[in-house]
Amino acid sequence: MDPEAFRREAHRVADWVADYLADSARYPVLAQIAPGDIVRALPAEAPDTGESFDAIFEDFERVIMPGITHWNHPGFFAYFSITGSGPGILAEFLSAALNVQAMLWRTSPAATELEEVTLAWLRKLVHLPGDFDGVIYDTASVSTLHALAAAREHVAPNVRARGLIGRYRVYCSDQTHSSIDKAVILLGLGHESLRKIASDSEFRMRVPALAAAIHEDRAAGWTPLAVVATVGTTSSTSIDPVAAVGEVCAREKVWLHVDAAYAGVAAMVPGYEHILAGAAGADSIVLNPHKWLFTPFDLSVLYTRHMDLLRSAFSLTPDYLQTTEVSPVRNLMDTGVQLGRRFRALKLWMVLRHFGAEGLKARLSEHMRLARLFAGWVDASEDFERLAPVPFSVVCFRSVPRALGSDETALDAHNEKLLDSVNRTGAVFLSQTRLGGRYSLRLAVGNLHTTEQHVARAWELLNNLR
Amino acid sequence: MDPEAFRREAHRVADWVADYLADSARYPVLAQIAPGDIVRALPAEAPDTGESFDAIFEDFERVIMPGITHWNHPGFFAYFSITGSGPGILAEFLSAALNVQAMLWRTSPAATELEEVTLAWLRKLVHLPGDFDGVIYDTASVSTLHALAAAREHVAPNVRARGLIGRYRVYCSDQTHSSIDKAVILLGLGHESLRKIASDSEFRMRVPALAAAIHEDRAAGWTPLAVVATVGTTSSTSIDPVAAVGEVCAREKVWLHVDAAYAGVAAMVPGYEHILAGAAGADSIVLNPHKWLFTPFDLSVLYTRHMDLLRSAFSLTPDYLQTTEVSPVRNLMDTGVQLGRRFRALKLWMVLRHFGAEGLKARLSEHMRLARLFAGWVDASEDFERLAPVPFSVVCFRSVPRALGSDETALDAHNEKLLDSVNRTGAVFLSQTRLGGRYSLRLAVGNLHTTEQHVARAWELLNNLR
Repeated sequence: MDPEAFRREAHRVADWVADYLADSARYPVLAQIAPGDIVRALPAEAPDTGESFDAIFEDFERVIMPGITHWNHPGFFAYFSITGSGPGILAEFLSAALNVQAMLWRTSPAATELEEVTLAWLRKLVHLPGDFDGVIYDTASVSTLHALAAAREHVAPNVRARGLIGRYRVYCSDQTHSSIDKAVILLGLGHESLRKIASDSEFRMRVPALAAAIHEDRAAGWTPLAVVATVGTTSSTSIDPVAAVGEVCAREKVWLHVDAAYAGVAAMVPGYEHILAGAAGADSIVLNPHKWLFTPFDLSVLYTRHMDLLRSAFSLTPDYLQTTEVSPVRNLMDTGVQLGRRFRALKLWMVLRHFGAEGLKARLSEHMRLARLFAGWVDASEDFERLAPVPFSVVCFRSVPRALGSDETALDAHNEKLLDSVNRTGAVFLSQTRLGGRYSLRLAVGNLHTTEQHVARAWELLNNLR
Repeated sequence: MDPEAFRREAHRVADWVADYLADSARYPVLAQIAPGDIVRALPAEAPDTGESFDAIFEDFERVIMPGITHWNHPGFFAYFSITGSGPGILAEFLSAALNVQAMLWRTSPAATELEEVTLAWLRKLVHLPGDFDGVIYDTASVSTLHALAAAREHVAPNVRARGLIGRYRVYCSDQTHSSIDKAVILLGLGHESLRKIASDSEFRMRVPALAAAIHEDRAAGWTPLAVVATVGTTSSTSIDPVAAVGEVCAREKVWLHVDAAYAGVAAMVPGYEHILAGAAGADSIVLNPHKWLFTPFDLSVLYTRHMDLLRSAFSLTPDYLQTTEVSPVRNLMDTGVQLGRRFRALKLWMVLRHFGAEGLKARLSEHMRLARLFAGWVDASEDFERLAPVPFSVVCFRSVPRALGSDETALDAHNEKLLDSVNRTGAVFLSQTRLGGRYSLRLAVGNLHTTEQHVARAWELLNNLR
């Protein structure tokens, strides 16, 4: 693509993206296609000769767009509702153009140092102490994997050379994210090494049960490796009693990892500082700006006070990556399994500056206000019931038709059907979970463009279609 | 950022990127700043109130750009020289705007299905058999990690539940990439589980030594887990005798993983089909379109004929991610540790269509021609010597001043100094490695904008500064 052709097409794409973001509500939220539709619409082989960008872009609009589920839609209330933002998107455009690999300081000093700067900004915004050092990974799954690898290095110092010998336990609650399960499997600890502690009626880890489990395991010959506490669990956004969990960890000398991937950023909002207060003594903590801080996917942050352990676990410099800086520099490849790294700090930097601390706080507050508003409607209705507290921006609830009484099986089926009907409208997209065995609908607010009107529309559809 | 502000800024960035790509040679290739310069130039805290995009972009140009090492510069000859391309960059812009999460089919059917389509295109281009199924990860480090995790699942079927018990070996050559080292550490196998087989005078794995090592290890109680053969090693781009390695693997029933991250794409060039011929019988193979296929970083492809094993190792569906499609769909979260996934297939699709098979082949051929041209100059010179064959687009060589004779220590120091002098010019950026103990300069061609003139300039500087 010659420079002038690139310029022309870049302006075309800029206009397309501007139009898209101005009105993403014109699309159905959830893609309304059938499995295989896109595969069938495309040729089975790459073209022999190059095609015009006109032809490619036409297919993008004709074939790809109908297969997009619109995470930008203000009616997207599923999973954790995420949004990018203008400055974040433009930063990604710049980052793709620069195409730097931040494996070594010298391969892109700006990427390395801007990561340091922005992670210090974010750390201060959420009131974490200064001895937490940060590093950016792609996803919380990978951040947590590295945290547990550092914990493993700590408990089993020969594990790097000799491999796993012995039986180790990782503790979390029965509400903890599945990435913990995948991490213990990958690390070779085995899924049985993960002991899930029962949660209480508000889906928070029972600390006495944790302490008892550790004692029982030690007596049975297991070595505790780490405890994972969550601030904002995936199902109900419950908050584990992190400070009390931390006391157990301190007493037992066990690594405390805090999964605050979704909710941790809320600690910057006045009145919410306490949610990470217990995490101040943790060994590691994960926050995902790509979840609820208007940063396009992917950008997950791991803070740890033991960056040295991550380096002991992973640093390794082959001949072809030796460098000769006279002063010490941070080579980001030393703290992870991924050698190549995108320039992700750029988008976080542009987002933090564009919104400013006040702008971020205002938007997070508004999302929480919308969730409380919706929860109030649920609470005031005889036809619905709430299934969990609403500490942040997610509401768990279900429809309870009088006719079904307390027939839990029928209630599950009814709510599953209701969810499907609501999502088929294309106006909103909600997801589900199970809480205490019950099928629960889940409304997650997180999109920059979601207003009271969109939440009201969801409520209206739920009432009309139940 | 309101829609019209976004439109205005998107056009500004589009012009900036077009200008940048049209003349990235105006910058020094290697950033000429000192460690800490960028940290010092930026405030220690995020701003309280939002700032204008004007102010942010001004700082991007003033503070960030001088700290960029220009991977787009036609004089970038270090590591593996990578380049994005216009269609790839625009696809990333679109992907950041859409911001879809391809964890489940329903969360973005287009991302899931376009991945299937483009990976079939790529597989056919490099002549791999149809029973290879593909999946996109971020980096080759992560692709290889998953390949070895699948191999581990295969050899130790209880490892998912029970964890690692016993002693396993992974084999590679002494030229294999450091990501294999990191993978065995992460997987809990321990670094000692990696047995590096000596390579021959052309840096290819010695197959009899591999067979002997496996026999010796079995006798000593180790269980062979996998062999990693490389097509295009990182130091010299040597090609392991994959077919012969494969015969050993077949006889010993050991998983064969082929690391073709850099060079595998060259199999599409007429005359180079043979480089992956031996890989046709492999269990898994990694190719990185972000290395030498004009796709912006990151996009690595793992092909395997055992996708079922990857699923056995990692699939796990919590309540909040259950779906209800009636026909079977591919949920990409089932084949990896990363739950969240960017829409990476879009850029590969646009790149493959923009260039077409012929366009890709022509550019890869030209890069290899430029490398051979440079190697010819080295061979014809009395002042330089080549240190390895040039099967692809990388030349390993050194300066051999007559005065230093065969004083290897002095030669190493001389070449290290020469490299530093050449890189300080800012006109080109070369890197180094060690081959047979000798400090070797390395010239890697891979940038779309590199022409004979840039290779000649590197040669001129090397001669002037030696």
